[in-house]
Amino acid sequence: MLDPNRWFSEVVENEGSAFSLRVREKLHEEQSRYQRIEVYATEGFGNLMVIDGCTMLSSRENFIYHEMMSHPALFTHPAPRRICIIGGGDCGTLREVLKHPDVTSAVQIDIDERVTRVSERYFPELTESNQDPRAQLLFEDGIRWIQEAPTGSLDVLIVDSTDPVGPAVGLFTRDFYADCWRVLDGSGILVQQSESPLYHLRILREMRDALRDAGFSDRRRLLFPQPIYPSGWWSATMAAKGVSLADFRAEDAARRSFETHYYNAEIHRAALAQPEFLRRESALEDCQAD
Amino acid sequence: MLDPNRWFSEVVENEGSAFSLRVREKLHEEQSRYQRIEVYATEGFGNLMVIDGCTMLSSRENFIYHEMMSHPALFTHPAPRRICIIGGGDCGTLREVLKHPDVTSAVQIDIDERVTRVSERYFPELTESNQDPRAQLLFEDGIRWIQEAPTGSLDVLIVDSTDPVGPAVGLFTRDFYADCWRVLDGSGILVQQSESPLYHLRILREMRDALRDAGFSDRRRLLFPQPIYPSGWWSATMAAKGVSLADFRAEDAARRSFETHYYNAEIHRAALAQPEFLRRESALEDCQAD
Repeated sequence: MLDPNRWFSEVVENEGSAFSLRVREKLHEEQSRYQRIEVYATEGFGNLMVIDGCTMLSSRENFIYHEMMSHPALFTHPAPRRICIIGGGDCGTLREVLKHPDVTSAVQIDIDERVTRVSERYFPELTESNQDPRAQLLFEDGIRWIQEAPTGSLDVLIVDSTDPVGPAVGLFTRDFYADCWRVLDGSGILVQQSESPLYHLRILREMRDALRDAGFSDRRRLLFPQPIYPSGWWSATMAAKGVSLADFRAEDAARRSFETHYYNAEIHRAALAQPEFLRRESALEDCQAD
Repeated sequence: MLDPNRWFSEVVENEGSAFSLRVREKLHEEQSRYQRIEVYATEGFGNLMVIDGCTMLSSRENFIYHEMMSHPALFTHPAPRRICIIGGGDCGTLREVLKHPDVTSAVQIDIDERVTRVSERYFPELTESNQDPRAQLLFEDGIRWIQEAPTGSLDVLIVDSTDPVGPAVGLFTRDFYADCWRVLDGSGILVQQSESPLYHLRILREMRDALRDAGFSDRRRLLFPQPIYPSGWWSATMAAKGVSLADFRAEDAARRSFETHYYNAEIHRAALAQPEFLRRESALEDCQAD
Protein backbone atom coordinates (compact mmCIF):
# COMPACT_ATOMS: atom_id res chain seq x y z
CA MET A 1 0.00 0.00 0.00
CA LEU A 2 1.25 3.49 -0.94
CA ASP A 3 4.18 2.14 -2.90
CA PRO A 4 6.62 5.08 -3.17
CA ASN A 5 7.09 4.25 -6.85
CA ARG A 6 3.40 4.95 -7.51
CA TRP A 7 2.59 7.67 -4.95
CA PHE A 8 3.96 11.07 -4.05
CA SER A 9 3.45 11.62 -0.31
CA GLU A 10 3.93 14.75 1.77
CA VAL A 11 4.42 13.76 5.38
CA VAL A 12 3.83 16.30 8.18
CA GLU A 13 6.13 14.85 10.81
CA ASN A 14 4.91 16.90 13.80
CA GLU A 15 1.27 16.04 13.17
CA GLY A 16 1.70 12.42 12.10
CA SER A 17 -0.32 12.96 8.94
CA ALA A 18 0.32 12.59 5.22
CA PHE A 19 -1.41 13.41 1.97
CA SER A 20 -0.62 11.39 -1.13
CA LEU A 21 -1.37 11.55 -4.85
CA ARG A 22 -0.92 8.59 -7.18
CA VAL A 23 1.52 9.46 -9.95
CA ARG A 24 1.87 8.25 -13.51
CA GLU A 25 5.43 9.57 -13.90
CA LYS A 26 7.92 12.13 -12.70
CA LEU A 27 8.05 14.77 -15.43
CA HIS A 28 10.81 16.95 -14.03
CA GLU A 29 13.38 17.12 -11.26
CA GLU A 30 16.10 19.66 -10.58
CA GLN A 31 18.05 21.27 -7.77
CA SER A 32 17.94 24.98 -8.48
CA ARG A 33 20.22 27.44 -6.71
CA TYR A 34 17.59 27.74 -3.96
CA GLN A 35 15.50 24.60 -3.75
CA ARG A 36 14.59 21.18 -5.18
CA ILE A 37 11.81 21.43 -7.79
CA GLU A 38 9.86 18.37 -8.95
CA VAL A 39 6.86 17.94 -11.24
CA TYR A 40 4.72 14.80 -11.34
CA ALA A 41 1.91 13.76 -13.66
CA THR A 42 -0.74 12.49 -11.24
CA GLU A 43 -3.73 10.28 -11.97
CA GLY A 44 -6.44 12.50 -10.52
CA PHE A 45 -5.00 16.00 -10.00
CA GLY A 46 -3.26 16.79 -13.29
CA ASN A 47 0.31 18.00 -12.90
CA LEU A 48 1.74 18.50 -9.42
CA MET A 49 4.62 20.83 -8.48
CA VAL A 50 6.64 19.93 -5.40
CA ILE A 51 9.31 22.17 -3.84
CA ASP A 52 11.66 20.76 -1.19
CA GLY A 53 9.26 17.85 -0.71
CA CYS A 54 6.15 20.02 -0.13
CA THR A 55 3.21 20.11 -2.53
CA MET A 56 2.97 23.59 -4.08
CA LEU A 57 0.11 23.30 -6.54
CA SER A 58 -1.77 20.92 -8.80
CA SER A 59 -3.61 21.66 -12.03
CA ARG A 60 -6.87 20.59 -10.42
CA GLU A 61 -7.15 22.72 -7.33
CA ASN A 62 -4.74 25.65 -7.52
CA PHE A 63 -7.66 27.90 -8.49
CA ILE A 64 -8.81 28.12 -4.87
CA TYR A 65 -5.45 29.29 -3.55
CA HIS A 66 -4.65 31.73 -6.36
CA GLU A 67 -8.07 33.34 -6.30
CA MET A 68 -8.04 33.74 -2.51
CA MET A 69 -4.52 35.22 -2.55
CA SER A 70 -5.59 37.96 -4.96
CA HIS A 71 -9.29 38.89 -5.25
CA PRO A 72 -10.18 39.53 -1.57
CA ALA A 73 -7.29 42.03 -1.18
CA LEU A 74 -7.95 43.67 -4.55
CA PHE A 75 -11.69 44.02 -3.89
CA THR A 76 -10.96 45.48 -0.42
CA HIS A 77 -8.58 48.24 -1.57
CA PRO A 78 -10.65 51.20 -2.83
CA ALA A 79 -8.71 51.52 -6.12
CA PRO A 80 -5.92 48.96 -6.55
CA ARG A 81 -3.62 49.93 -9.42
CA ARG A 82 -0.03 49.17 -8.38
CA ILE A 83 0.39 45.55 -7.29
CA CYS A 84 3.47 43.63 -6.18
CA ILE A 85 3.75 39.87 -5.68
CA ILE A 86 6.67 38.56 -3.61
CA GLY A 87 7.22 34.91 -4.49
CA GLY A 88 4.44 33.52 -6.67
CA GLY A 89 6.88 32.17 -9.24
CA ASP A 90 4.29 29.79 -10.70
CA CYS A 91 2.51 32.97 -11.97
CA GLY A 92 -0.99 31.83 -10.95
CA THR A 93 -1.49 34.76 -8.58
CA LEU A 94 -0.17 37.16 -11.23
CA ARG A 95 -2.74 35.84 -13.70
CA GLU A 96 -5.58 36.51 -11.23
CA VAL A 97 -4.28 40.03 -10.42
CA LEU A 98 -4.16 40.92 -14.12
CA LYS A 99 -7.85 40.02 -14.51
CA HIS A 100 -8.63 43.31 -12.72
CA PRO A 101 -8.89 45.88 -15.54
CA ASP A 102 -7.93 48.85 -13.34
CA VAL A 103 -4.56 47.37 -12.38
CA THR A 104 -1.86 49.40 -14.15
CA SER A 105 1.24 47.49 -13.00
CA ALA A 106 1.88 44.07 -11.48
CA VAL A 107 5.45 43.26 -10.49
CA GLN A 108 6.27 39.67 -9.54
CA ILE A 109 9.52 39.15 -7.65
CA ASP A 110 10.53 35.54 -7.11
CA ILE A 111 14.06 34.76 -6.06
CA ASP A 112 14.08 31.56 -8.13
CA GLU A 113 13.61 32.00 -11.89
CA ARG A 114 13.52 28.22 -12.30
CA VAL A 115 10.04 28.03 -10.68
CA THR A 116 8.67 30.28 -13.42
CA ARG A 117 10.45 28.39 -16.20
CA VAL A 118 9.12 25.07 -14.89
CA SER A 119 5.62 26.55 -14.58
CA GLU A 120 5.74 27.84 -18.18
CA ARG A 121 6.36 24.30 -19.30
CA TYR A 122 4.10 22.23 -17.03
CA PHE A 123 1.40 24.74 -15.98
CA PRO A 124 1.09 26.90 -19.11
CA GLU A 125 -2.43 28.00 -18.11
CA LEU A 126 -0.94 29.83 -15.11
CA THR A 127 1.59 31.77 -17.18
CA GLU A 128 -0.79 32.77 -19.99
CA SER A 129 -0.86 36.43 -18.87
CA ASN A 130 2.91 36.82 -18.47
CA GLN A 131 3.12 38.79 -21.74
CA ASP A 132 0.56 41.34 -20.52
CA PRO A 133 2.26 44.77 -20.88
CA ARG A 134 1.29 45.58 -17.26
CA ALA A 135 3.26 42.58 -15.95
CA GLN A 136 6.91 42.70 -14.91
CA LEU A 137 8.73 39.54 -13.82
CA LEU A 138 11.85 40.02 -11.72
CA PHE A 139 14.05 37.24 -10.34
CA GLU A 140 15.78 38.65 -7.32
CA ASP A 141 15.51 38.98 -3.54
CA GLY A 142 12.03 40.31 -2.73
CA ILE A 143 13.06 41.46 0.76
CA ARG A 144 15.75 43.73 -0.69
CA TRP A 145 13.40 44.93 -3.46
CA ILE A 146 10.88 46.04 -0.83
CA GLN A 147 13.64 47.72 1.23
CA GLU A 148 14.59 49.81 -1.81
CA ALA A 149 11.08 50.53 -3.16
CA PRO A 150 9.81 54.13 -2.85
CA THR A 151 7.56 54.99 0.11
CA GLY A 152 3.83 54.78 -0.66
CA SER A 153 4.42 53.28 -4.09
CA LEU A 154 2.18 50.19 -3.87
CA ASP A 155 -1.56 49.63 -3.37
CA VAL A 156 -1.54 45.86 -2.74
CA LEU A 157 1.38 43.68 -1.76
CA ILE A 158 0.87 39.91 -2.04
CA VAL A 159 3.33 37.59 -0.28
CA ASP A 160 2.87 34.26 -2.04
CA SER A 161 5.73 32.31 -0.54
CA THR A 162 6.64 28.80 0.54
CA ASP A 163 6.44 27.83 4.22
CA PRO A 164 8.40 29.88 6.78
CA VAL A 165 11.49 27.69 6.56
CA GLY A 166 14.41 27.98 4.12
CA PRO A 167 14.42 30.88 1.64
CA ALA A 168 11.01 32.22 2.79
CA VAL A 169 11.79 32.64 6.50
CA GLY A 170 12.61 36.36 6.19
CA LEU A 171 9.13 37.01 4.78
CA PHE A 172 7.51 36.27 8.15
CA THR A 173 9.37 38.86 10.28
CA ARG A 174 8.47 42.20 11.83
CA ASP A 175 11.33 43.93 9.98
CA PHE A 176 9.97 42.77 6.63
CA TYR A 177 6.44 43.86 7.58
CA ALA A 178 7.73 47.31 8.63
CA ASP A 179 9.27 47.71 5.18
CA CYS A 180 5.98 46.60 3.58
CA TRP A 181 4.08 49.14 5.69
CA ARG A 182 6.35 51.94 4.43
CA VAL A 183 6.04 50.93 0.78
CA LEU A 184 2.23 50.69 0.83
CA ASP A 185 0.18 53.82 0.27
CA GLY A 186 -2.33 55.10 2.85
CA SER A 187 -5.05 52.60 1.84
CA GLY A 188 -2.54 49.86 1.20
CA ILE A 189 -3.18 46.18 1.89
CA LEU A 190 -0.78 43.32 2.44
CA VAL A 191 -1.93 39.72 2.05
CA GLN A 192 0.21 36.68 2.82
CA GLN A 193 -0.34 32.95 2.81
CA SER A 194 -0.39 31.94 6.47
CA GLU A 195 -0.50 28.13 6.72
CA SER A 196 -3.11 25.81 8.25
CA PRO A 197 -5.52 27.01 10.97
CA LEU A 198 -5.47 23.48 12.39
CA TYR A 199 -1.73 22.77 12.29
CA HIS A 200 0.00 26.15 12.46
CA LEU A 201 -1.80 28.31 15.01
CA ARG A 202 1.52 29.45 16.46
CA ILE A 203 2.64 30.80 13.08
CA LEU A 204 -0.72 32.53 12.60
CA ARG A 205 -0.39 34.17 16.01
CA GLU A 206 3.20 35.27 15.51
CA MET A 207 2.36 36.76 12.11
CA ARG A 208 -0.57 38.63 13.57
CA ASP A 209 1.54 40.08 16.37
CA ALA A 210 4.40 41.01 14.03
CA LEU A 211 1.99 42.74 11.62
CA ARG A 212 0.47 44.70 14.49
CA ASP A 213 3.90 45.67 15.81
CA ALA A 214 4.89 46.81 12.30
CA GLY A 215 2.01 49.29 12.32
CA PHE A 216 -0.82 47.58 10.44
CA SER A 217 -4.06 48.87 11.99
CA ASP A 218 -6.33 45.99 10.91
CA ARG A 219 -5.51 42.31 10.45
CA ARG A 220 -7.91 39.57 9.34
CA ARG A 221 -7.65 35.94 8.37
CA LEU A 222 -9.18 34.45 5.24
CA LEU A 223 -9.93 30.71 5.52
CA PHE A 224 -10.45 28.35 2.61
CA PRO A 225 -10.14 24.67 1.68
CA GLN A 226 -6.88 23.59 0.07
CA PRO A 227 -7.16 19.86 -0.60
CA ILE A 228 -3.47 19.10 -1.27
CA TYR A 229 -1.98 21.16 1.59
CA PRO A 230 -1.44 19.76 5.09
CA SER A 231 -4.81 19.37 6.88
CA GLY A 232 -6.70 20.36 3.70
CA TRP A 233 -7.53 23.72 5.26
CA TRP A 234 -5.54 26.88 4.68
CA SER A 235 -5.40 30.58 5.46
CA ALA A 236 -4.20 33.92 4.15
CA THR A 237 -3.73 36.90 6.46
CA MET A 238 -4.67 40.39 5.26
CA ALA A 239 -3.27 43.50 6.94
CA ALA A 240 -4.26 47.10 6.24
CA LYS A 241 -2.63 50.47 6.91
CA GLY A 242 -5.66 52.72 6.90
CA VAL A 243 -8.76 50.93 5.64
CA SER A 244 -11.04 48.43 7.38
CA LEU A 245 -10.74 44.86 6.17
CA ALA A 246 -14.28 44.03 7.32
CA ASP A 247 -15.73 45.92 4.35
CA PHE A 248 -14.99 45.44 0.69
CA ARG A 249 -16.29 46.53 -2.70
CA ALA A 250 -18.99 43.87 -2.68
CA GLU A 251 -20.90 45.40 -5.60
CA ASP A 252 -17.77 45.44 -7.75
CA ALA A 253 -16.96 41.87 -6.70
CA ALA A 254 -20.47 40.72 -7.63
CA ARG A 255 -20.33 42.49 -11.01
CA ARG A 256 -16.71 41.66 -11.83
CA SER A 257 -15.88 41.51 -15.54
CA PHE A 258 -13.94 38.23 -15.34
CA GLU A 259 -14.54 34.59 -14.56
CA THR A 260 -13.56 32.86 -11.34
CA HIS A 261 -14.06 29.28 -10.13
CA TYR A 262 -13.99 29.73 -6.36
CA TYR A 263 -14.16 33.44 -5.49
CA ASN A 264 -17.33 35.51 -5.43
CA ALA A 265 -18.67 38.22 -3.11
CA GLU A 266 -20.39 35.71 -0.81
CA ILE A 267 -17.25 33.59 -0.56
CA HIS A 268 -15.22 36.71 0.26
CA ARG A 269 -17.51 37.45 3.21
CA ALA A 270 -17.56 33.78 4.23
CA ALA A 271 -13.77 33.47 4.22
CA LEU A 272 -13.58 36.23 6.86
CA ALA A 273 -15.76 34.26 9.32
CA GLN A 274 -13.68 32.76 12.12
CA PRO A 275 -14.50 29.44 13.79
CA GLU A 276 -15.13 29.71 17.50
CA PHE A 277 -11.72 28.33 18.51
CA LEU A 278 -9.96 31.03 16.46
CA ARG A 279 -12.30 33.75 17.70
CA ARG A 280 -11.59 32.86 21.31
CA GLU A 281 -7.86 32.88 20.67
CA SER A 282 -8.07 36.29 18.93
CA ALA A 283 -10.12 37.78 21.76
CA LEU A 284 -7.43 36.62 24.18
CA GLU A 285 -4.69 38.25 22.11
CA ASP A 286 -6.62 41.51 21.89
CA CYS A 287 -6.89 41.60 25.67
CA GLN A 288 -3.18 40.94 26.07
CA ALA A 289 -2.35 43.69 23.57
CA ASP A 290 -4.33 46.34 25.45
CA MET B 1 7.79 5.51 3.40
CA LEU B 2 4.23 5.12 4.69
CA ASP B 3 4.95 1.72 6.11
CA PRO B 4 1.52 0.08 6.53
CA ASN B 5 2.57 -1.10 9.98
CA ARG B 6 2.96 2.50 11.14
CA TRP B 7 0.30 4.34 9.10
CA PHE B 8 -3.41 4.01 8.55
CA SER B 9 -4.21 5.15 5.01
CA GLU B 10 -7.56 5.77 3.35
CA VAL B 11 -7.15 5.57 -0.40
CA VAL B 12 -9.71 7.16 -2.73
CA GLU B 13 -9.23 4.97 -5.77
CA ASN B 14 -11.18 7.06 -8.30
CA GLU B 15 -9.33 10.24 -7.41
CA GLY B 16 -5.86 8.77 -6.92
CA SER B 17 -5.50 10.40 -3.51
CA ALA B 18 -4.90 9.17 0.03
CA PHE B 19 -4.88 10.57 3.53
CA SER B 20 -2.81 8.87 6.22
CA LEU B 21 -2.36 9.09 9.97
CA ARG B 22 0.59 7.62 11.81
CA VAL B 23 -0.59 5.10 14.39
CA ARG B 24 0.87 3.96 17.69
CA GLU B 25 -1.31 0.86 17.87
CA LYS B 26 -4.55 -0.74 16.81
CA LEU B 27 -6.82 -0.58 19.86
CA HIS B 28 -9.80 -2.48 18.49
CA GLU B 29 -10.94 -4.50 15.52
CA GLU B 30 -14.19 -6.38 14.91
CA GLN B 31 -16.53 -7.46 12.18
CA SER B 32 -19.98 -6.51 13.42
CA ARG B 33 -23.13 -7.86 11.79
CA TYR B 34 -23.04 -4.87 9.39
CA GLN B 35 -19.49 -3.62 8.98
CA ARG B 36 -15.84 -3.79 9.98
CA ILE B 37 -15.02 -1.44 12.88
CA GLU B 38 -11.46 -0.51 13.80
CA VAL B 39 -9.99 1.95 16.30
CA TYR B 40 -6.39 3.17 16.19
CA ALA B 41 -4.39 5.30 18.63
CA THR B 42 -2.74 7.85 16.34
CA GLU B 43 0.28 10.05 17.05
CA GLY B 44 -1.31 13.41 16.23
CA PHE B 45 -5.08 12.99 16.07
CA GLY B 46 -5.96 11.06 19.23
CA ASN B 47 -8.11 8.00 18.64
CA LEU B 48 -9.35 7.24 15.13
CA MET B 49 -12.46 5.20 14.25
CA VAL B 50 -12.47 3.47 10.86
CA ILE B 51 -15.50 1.68 9.36
CA ASP B 52 -15.07 -0.54 6.32
CA GLY B 53 -11.69 1.08 5.67
CA CYS B 54 -13.01 4.67 5.74
CA THR B 55 -12.05 7.20 8.42
CA MET B 56 -15.13 8.09 10.46
CA LEU B 57 -13.83 10.41 13.15
CA SER B 58 -10.81 11.30 15.24
CA SER B 59 -10.66 12.78 18.72
CA ARG B 60 -8.94 15.88 17.33
CA GLU B 61 -11.24 17.13 14.61
CA ASN B 62 -14.68 15.51 14.97
CA PHE B 63 -15.95 18.74 16.56
CA ILE B 64 -16.25 20.41 13.16
CA TYR B 65 -18.41 17.65 11.67
CA HIS B 66 -20.66 17.11 14.68
CA GLU B 67 -21.29 20.81 15.22
CA MET B 68 -22.09 21.39 11.55
CA MET B 69 -24.45 18.40 11.42
CA SER B 70 -26.53 19.78 14.29
CA HIS B 71 -26.39 23.51 15.10
CA PRO B 72 -27.17 25.05 11.67
CA ALA B 73 -30.37 22.97 11.33
CA LEU B 74 -31.42 23.53 14.95
CA PHE B 75 -30.82 27.29 14.73
CA THR B 76 -32.78 27.46 11.46
CA HIS B 77 -35.92 25.69 12.72
CA PRO B 78 -38.07 28.26 14.62
CA ALA B 79 -38.55 26.01 17.70
CA PRO B 80 -36.79 22.64 17.45
CA ARG B 81 -38.02 20.27 20.15
CA ARG B 82 -38.35 16.78 18.65
CA ILE B 83 -35.13 15.62 17.03
CA CYS B 84 -34.24 12.35 15.33
CA ILE B 85 -30.77 11.21 14.28
CA ILE B 86 -30.52 8.38 11.75
CA GLY B 87 -27.07 6.81 12.03
CA GLY B 88 -24.75 8.82 14.26
CA GLY B 89 -23.85 5.78 16.37
CA ASP B 90 -20.70 7.46 17.73
CA CYS B 91 -23.13 9.79 19.62
CA GLY B 92 -21.22 12.99 18.82
CA THR B 93 -24.16 14.55 16.96
CA LEU B 94 -26.52 13.51 19.78
CA ARG B 95 -24.30 15.29 22.29
CA GLU B 96 -24.46 18.53 20.26
CA VAL B 97 -28.25 18.29 19.83
CA LEU B 98 -28.73 17.87 23.58
CA LYS B 99 -26.84 21.12 24.21
CA HIS B 100 -29.98 22.95 23.01
CA PRO B 101 -32.06 23.46 26.18
CA ASP B 102 -35.40 23.58 24.31
CA VAL B 103 -34.99 20.11 22.82
CA THR B 104 -37.46 17.78 24.55
CA SER B 105 -36.59 14.51 22.82
CA ALA B 106 -33.64 13.25 20.78
CA VAL B 107 -33.93 9.76 19.31
CA GLN B 108 -30.82 8.21 17.78
CA ILE B 109 -31.40 5.21 15.50
CA ASP B 110 -28.26 3.43 14.36
CA ILE B 111 -28.57 -0.01 12.83
CA ASP B 112 -25.28 -1.10 14.42
CA GLU B 113 -25.17 -1.09 18.22
CA ARG B 114 -21.49 -1.99 18.09
CA VAL B 115 -20.56 1.50 16.85
CA THR B 116 -22.04 3.00 20.02
CA ARG B 117 -20.41 0.43 22.28
CA VAL B 118 -17.01 1.05 20.67
CA SER B 119 -17.53 4.82 20.94
CA GLU B 120 -18.40 4.53 24.65
CA ARG B 121 -15.04 2.89 25.19
CA TYR B 122 -12.72 4.86 22.90
CA PHE B 123 -14.50 8.21 22.52
CA PRO B 124 -16.16 8.63 25.96
CA GLU B 125 -16.37 12.42 25.48
CA LEU B 126 -18.86 11.86 22.65
CA THR B 127 -21.16 9.64 24.68
CA GLU B 128 -21.18 11.79 27.82
CA SER B 129 -24.79 12.92 27.26
CA ASN B 130 -26.23 9.45 26.54
CA GLN B 131 -27.80 9.31 30.00
CA ASP B 132 -29.70 12.56 29.42
CA PRO B 133 -33.40 11.74 30.07
CA ARG B 134 -34.32 13.39 26.75
CA ALA B 135 -32.11 10.92 24.82
CA GLN B 136 -33.31 7.60 23.44
CA LEU B 137 -30.89 5.22 21.72
CA LEU B 138 -32.40 2.64 19.37
CA PHE B 139 -30.49 0.03 17.41
CA GLU B 140 -32.62 -0.85 14.42
CA ASP B 141 -33.27 0.03 10.79
CA GLY B 142 -33.70 3.81 10.54
CA ILE B 143 -35.47 3.59 7.18
CA ARG B 144 -38.20 1.39 8.63
CA TRP B 145 -38.42 3.54 11.77
CA ILE B 146 -39.10 6.60 9.61
CA GLN B 147 -41.67 4.69 7.53
CA GLU B 148 -43.58 3.85 10.72
CA ALA B 149 -43.19 7.21 12.51
CA PRO B 150 -46.34 9.39 12.86
CA THR B 151 -46.88 12.15 10.31
CA GLY B 152 -45.60 15.57 11.43
CA SER B 153 -43.95 14.15 14.55
CA LEU B 154 -40.42 15.56 14.10
CA ASP B 155 -38.94 19.06 13.94
CA VAL B 156 -35.42 18.20 12.80
CA LEU B 157 -34.21 14.98 11.20
CA ILE B 158 -30.43 14.48 11.01
CA VAL B 159 -29.07 11.79 8.69
CA ASP B 160 -25.56 11.16 9.98
CA SER B 161 -24.61 8.14 7.93
CA THR B 162 -21.62 6.54 6.25
CA ASP B 163 -21.04 7.01 2.51
CA PRO B 164 -23.82 5.98 0.08
CA VAL B 165 -22.54 2.44 -0.34
CA GLY B 166 -23.29 -0.62 1.81
CA PRO B 167 -25.81 -0.24 4.65
CA ALA B 168 -26.32 3.52 4.07
CA VAL B 169 -27.33 3.40 0.40
CA GLY B 170 -31.08 3.51 1.14
CA LEU B 171 -30.61 6.80 3.00
CA PHE B 172 -29.84 8.64 -0.26
CA THR B 173 -33.04 7.80 -2.18
CA ARG B 174 -36.15 9.72 -3.15
CA ASP B 175 -38.38 7.17 -1.38
CA PHE B 176 -36.55 7.72 1.91
CA TYR B 177 -36.75 11.50 1.51
CA ALA B 178 -40.51 11.28 0.81
CA ASP B 179 -40.92 9.41 4.11
CA CYS B 180 -38.80 12.04 5.87
CA TRP B 181 -40.96 14.81 4.36
CA ARG B 182 -44.09 13.18 5.75
CA VAL B 183 -42.67 12.69 9.24
CA LEU B 184 -41.42 16.29 9.55
CA ASP B 185 -43.80 18.97 10.78
CA GLY B 186 -44.66 22.05 8.68
CA SER B 187 -41.44 23.90 9.60
CA GLY B 188 -39.41 20.69 9.57
CA ILE B 189 -35.79 20.49 8.45
CA LEU B 190 -33.74 17.55 7.26
CA VAL B 191 -29.95 17.69 7.25
CA GLN B 192 -27.70 14.98 5.84
CA GLN B 193 -23.96 14.58 5.37
CA SER B 194 -23.38 14.88 1.64
CA GLU B 195 -19.75 14.07 0.87
CA SER B 196 -17.00 16.20 -0.71
CA PRO B 197 -17.80 19.18 -2.96
CA LEU B 198 -14.58 18.46 -4.85
CA TYR B 199 -14.89 14.69 -5.26
CA HIS B 200 -18.62 13.90 -5.13
CA LEU B 201 -20.45 16.52 -7.13
CA ARG B 202 -22.60 13.85 -8.76
CA ILE B 203 -23.84 12.62 -5.35
CA LEU B 204 -24.53 16.21 -4.29
CA ARG B 205 -26.56 16.77 -7.47
CA GLU B 206 -28.52 13.54 -7.18
CA MET B 207 -29.35 14.25 -3.52
CA ARG B 208 -30.52 17.73 -4.39
CA ASP B 209 -32.77 16.45 -7.17
CA ALA B 210 -34.16 13.63 -5.02
CA LEU B 211 -34.92 16.04 -2.15
CA ARG B 212 -36.70 18.40 -4.57
CA ASP B 213 -38.69 15.52 -6.07
CA ALA B 214 -39.67 14.38 -2.56
CA GLY B 215 -41.29 17.76 -1.93
CA PHE B 216 -38.68 19.79 -0.01
CA SER B 217 -39.23 23.42 -1.01
CA ASP B 218 -35.74 24.73 -0.13
CA ARG B 219 -32.39 22.95 -0.26
CA ARG B 220 -29.00 24.41 0.69
CA ARG B 221 -25.48 23.09 1.11
CA LEU B 222 -23.31 23.76 4.13
CA LEU B 223 -19.57 23.57 3.41
CA PHE B 224 -16.86 23.07 6.00
CA PRO B 225 -13.32 21.72 6.36
CA GLN B 226 -12.96 18.10 7.43
CA PRO B 227 -9.25 17.35 7.61
CA ILE B 228 -9.43 13.53 7.77
CA TYR B 229 -12.11 13.01 5.07
CA PRO B 230 -11.29 12.64 1.37
CA SER B 231 -10.23 16.02 -0.10
CA GLY B 232 -10.31 17.62 3.39
CA TRP B 233 -13.48 19.49 2.40
CA TRP B 234 -16.98 18.28 3.23
CA SER B 235 -20.66 19.19 2.97
CA ALA B 236 -24.02 18.70 4.60
CA THR B 237 -27.25 19.32 2.70
CA MET B 238 -30.20 20.93 4.48
CA ALA B 239 -33.75 20.60 3.10
CA ALA B 240 -36.85 22.37 4.42
CA LYS B 241 -40.58 21.77 4.06
CA GLY B 242 -41.92 25.22 4.73
CA VAL B 243 -39.24 27.56 6.04
CA SER B 244 -36.44 29.36 4.21
CA LEU B 245 -32.98 28.00 4.86
CA ALA B 246 -31.35 31.34 3.99
CA ASP B 247 -32.46 32.80 7.32
CA PHE B 248 -31.80 31.46 10.78
CA ARG B 249 -32.13 32.50 14.42
CA ALA B 250 -28.85 34.41 14.31
CA GLU B 251 -29.48 36.21 17.60
CA ASP B 252 -30.13 32.94 19.38
CA ALA B 253 -27.04 31.40 17.77
CA ALA B 254 -24.91 34.34 18.89
CA ARG B 255 -26.28 34.19 22.45
CA ARG B 256 -26.33 30.39 22.74
CA SER B 257 -26.00 29.04 26.27
CA PHE B 258 -23.42 26.38 25.41
CA GLU B 259 -19.84 26.15 24.22
CA THR B 260 -18.82 25.24 20.68
CA HIS B 261 -15.39 24.98 19.06
CA TYR B 262 -16.24 25.55 15.39
CA TYR B 263 -19.85 26.78 15.08
CA ASN B 264 -20.99 30.34 15.66
CA ALA B 265 -23.48 32.63 13.90
CA GLU B 266 -20.87 33.96 11.46
CA ILE B 267 -19.71 30.46 10.59
CA HIS B 268 -23.33 29.42 9.99
CA ARG B 269 -23.74 32.21 7.44
CA ALA B 270 -20.33 31.48 5.93
CA ALA B 271 -21.05 27.77 5.49
CA LEU B 272 -24.02 28.64 3.27
CA ALA B 273 -21.83 30.58 0.79
CA GLN B 274 -21.23 28.61 -2.39
CA PRO B 275 -18.02 28.80 -4.42
CA GLU B 276 -18.50 30.01 -7.97
CA PHE B 277 -18.20 26.53 -9.54
CA LEU B 278 -21.04 25.23 -7.31
CA ARG B 279 -23.15 28.33 -7.91
CA ARG B 280 -22.89 27.95 -11.67
CA GLU B 281 -23.82 24.28 -11.44
CA SER B 282 -26.84 25.08 -9.21
CA ALA B 283 -28.02 27.83 -11.58
CA LEU B 284 -27.89 25.31 -14.41
CA GLU B 285 -29.96 22.80 -12.42
CA ASP B 286 -32.54 25.45 -11.55
CA CYS B 287 -32.93 26.25 -15.25
CA GLN B 288 -33.36 22.59 -16.12
CA ALA B 289 -35.97 22.16 -13.39
CA ASP B 290 -38.13 25.02 -14.67
